[in-house]
Amino acid sequence: MLKPESYILRIGHRPERDQRVTTHVGLSSRALGASGMYLAADDQKVADSIADVAHRFGGTYFCENNVKWKSCINTFKRNGGKVVHLTMYGLRLQDVIPKIRTEEKILVVVGAEKVPGDMYELADYNVAVANQPHSEISALALFLDHLYEGAELELTFPDAELEVLPTAIGKTTVKHDEHHGDEA
Amino acid sequence: MLKPESYILRIGHRPERDQRVTTHVGLSSRALGASGMYLAADDQKVADSIADVAHRFGGTYFCENNVKWKSCINTFKRNGGKVVHLTMYGLRLQDVIPKIRTEEKILVVVGAEKVPGDMYELADYNVAVANQPHSEISALALFLDHLYEGAELELTFPDAELEVLPTAIGKTTVKHDEHHGDEA
Repeated sequence: MLKPESYILRIGHRPERDQRVTTHVGLSSRALGASGMYLAADDQKVADSIADVAHRFGGTYFCENNVKWKSCINTFKRNGGKVVHLTMYGLRLQDVIPKIRTEEKILVVVGAEKVPGDMYELADYNVAVANQPHSEISALALFLDHLYEGAELELTFPDAELEVLPTAIGKTTVKHDEHHGDEA
Repeated sequence: MLKPESYILRIGHRPERDQRVTTHVGLSSRALGASGMYLAADDQKVADSIADVAHRFGGTYFCENNVKWKSCINTFKRNGGKVVHLTMYGLRLQDVIPKIRTEEKILVVVGAEKVPGDMYELADYNVAVANQPHSEISALALFLDHLYEGAELELTFPDAELEVLPTAIGKTTVKHDEHHGDEA
């Protein structure tokens, strides 16, 4: 497993409006080495859709629907974790990431457009990717890639039903038997 | 300027449904060193919204609405550029990026859910970020970051009206006079 362990807390999610972006947040973090996502909103459909991909493509990524964001943060801190808040106003990724790499486990808070003001105080690290407006998805992707220094691109996902093989032109997928992991 | 020059071609965009994701594609590529985006759909609202951010936060990023995707690719190739298609089925980013770094300029094709089959043939490089399903936004972000080896995080954007200064807790912004670039 990659170190530090990382978990995502998605806040400010508005059902309907944010479903696709939040799904991208979940799937991107799964693909790039995070262990799971806490969704601080009640949107079972998004949680199910992420869990469905995670099941088919392997690994142990989870998505927990409808958490309370402050108690999620407080519990995580009580258990020894540190909280990283991604915001375009924070300290530069390249300056703070060496320190963050020394932590045991981190909760990465990914906000939608509006973030409560006290989030900045609750965070152990407010981290910016480029101090420019862009996307919480790309900010999260770069954060995880710099955290794991590219090692996350070598991850394999155990017990996948469906596997994609790198291909120069076209698509190559392998279906594995659900119970034995054999090629179908 | 970062080398190789990079441009984005957004294909498969469906007005309404894809507006937020396409806007994230544009803003992320701007923040991470691309020169501009061609939008292969008629959605002036998205193009305007990206141009508006680009104007306020500086730099020369452009967004061109309503291009024809195939003629955009053909023109780019005729002018000596190479075409990179981001797809979860492609060759691994970490394996092909050293070669792509040697190109003069590249057009990065970013598809929505459905991509025409001949896109794979038209591309000089089909590139996958992790061979896992996630997000075209995170794939693009990691592609640009690996292309520029993190140098894009040191970019400055000339003639910004609004500038964000890295801050440990809270927000610090500087407004520049539009005509003289002085602090307001």
